[in-house]
Amino acid sequence: MDLLKEDERLDYLLGENLKIIQSPKVFSFSLDAVLLSNFTSVSKSPKRKIVDLCSGNGVIPLFLSVKTSAQIIGVEIQERLCEMAIRSVQYNKLESQIQMMNFDLKEAVKRIGSEKYDVITCNPPYFQSFTENELNENEHFTIARHEIRCTLEDVVQVSSQLLKQGGKANFVHRPGRLIDLIMLMRKFRLEPKRLQFIYPKQGKEANMILIEGIKDGKADLKVLPPFVVYQDDNEYTEEMRKIVYG
Amino acid sequence: MDLLKEDERLDYLLGENLKIIQSPKVFSFSLDAVLLSNFTSVSKSPKRKIVDLCSGNGVIPLFLSVKTSAQIIGVEIQERLCEMAIRSVQYNKLESQIQMMNFDLKEAVKRIGSEKYDVITCNPPYFQSFTENELNENEHFTIARHEIRCTLEDVVQVSSQLLKQGGKANFVHRPGRLIDLIMLMRKFRLEPKRLQFIYPKQGKEANMILIEGIKDGKADLKVLPPFVVYQDDNEYTEEMRKIVYG
Repeated sequence: MDLLKEDERLDYLLGENLKIIQSPKVFSFSLDAVLLSNFTSVSKSPKRKIVDLCSGNGVIPLFLSVKTSAQIIGVEIQERLCEMAIRSVQYNKLESQIQMMNFDLKEAVKRIGSEKYDVITCNPPYFQSFTENELNENEHFTIARHEIRCTLEDVVQVSSQLLKQGGKANFVHRPGRLIDLIMLMRKFRLEPKRLQFIYPKQGKEANMILIEGIKDGKADLKVLPPFVVYQDDNEYTEEMRKIVYG
Repeated sequence: MDLLKEDERLDYLLGENLKIIQSPKVFSFSLDAVLLSNFTSVSKSPKRKIVDLCSGNGVIPLFLSVKTSAQIIGVEIQERLCEMAIRSVQYNKLESQIQMMNFDLKEAVKRIGSEKYDVITCNPPYFQSFTENELNENEHFTIARHEIRCTLEDVVQVSSQLLKQGGKANFVHRPGRLIDLIMLMRKFRLEPKRLQFIYPKQGKEANMILIEGIKDGKADLKVLPPFVVYQDDNEYTEEMRKIVYG
């Protein structure tokens, strides 16, 4: 099997530690996934089990593999993206740790079992509505970005079903949906415990939220220090450089 | 009537613009009230009507009087505190703008009417539980700090009842109760629209939240830039100095 197809390229992750197959025509991972991977706290133990929902080209499983020896399942509904992720996993020789699976997350319990997992990560589609144009232009992007094949409620419900009691769900989303996300997390027994806001620059409004919920956890939220991505000169901040380049 | 009683003293607010009667034995206002006053956006119009619940010694009405000509009602359940607030209002010659009233906020609708107000502010008691000791030590403090005479649910429900459609409720609380507060705001039709976190210092977890909800507003939260109170040398930051000293 050829490593790269058509318009694909091989990009670096974390300096030169990992490589990932991307295609600008289909999907490229975003900072959101990088920040979620960094935010997610995982035990190093190989006995732990992680599931990454809406896994795309597998960027979060690849990132997490640096932090833990836990088993990681990536679930992606789009066959093309999942297949790219499988090749990336092979290229990085991580087949024994990361398993990419191509199915609809609403079938996750049936496919991989309930209440068995320690950590869930998910960088879900952000947008509720979409226009006919968006749908026609590029289906791969539209499915990744809009709540077409799964809603936020599906994501939170399935995450809760997969998690053991005390297991942790980690989500990234936009501030505009934080209230909905919190309502759904409470509805599905994922008590918000850690919350962090990402600010594009000093003095700007937040444009991203990171949140961890613990299944059946006790109510007691911590709000982490603010995280700023860019300096005033549009270069990454020191804290961002550390995450991106390792 | 003497201006000051027993252990009371006259403190400055906003440089020398206002004075407020305080007593270390009964109640002194905190930064929380100052930050909530600053966070609250009010029209300058004298036709607007504001209610401050859990008003204590009236610090929030006094602060707001600098920003607006709106009519302000302060509601305080503790007679001693309310009476101190009345004297502060008189001292500052604000009787035509600020009316302090001594009653239980659960009677607010009966006392001052429903759906008539544009803005509500409230710096409620923060703590759900209390020990027998705390209750015995100083009843004034205990009532101000603990959910004894009113719960967070009472505060949110009454705020919603008082507000017109489109009116704004502004609360300050601790991060540990943010999720409860959001759940209650949605329950009582106060859609969270602006959220700001207060950090004691750079790099620390937030220790205070400020939130604005709009009655029957559309879901779309903005998360404001982080606000830091102290510099590393324990002096106020520039942004904090502006608020405290005007």
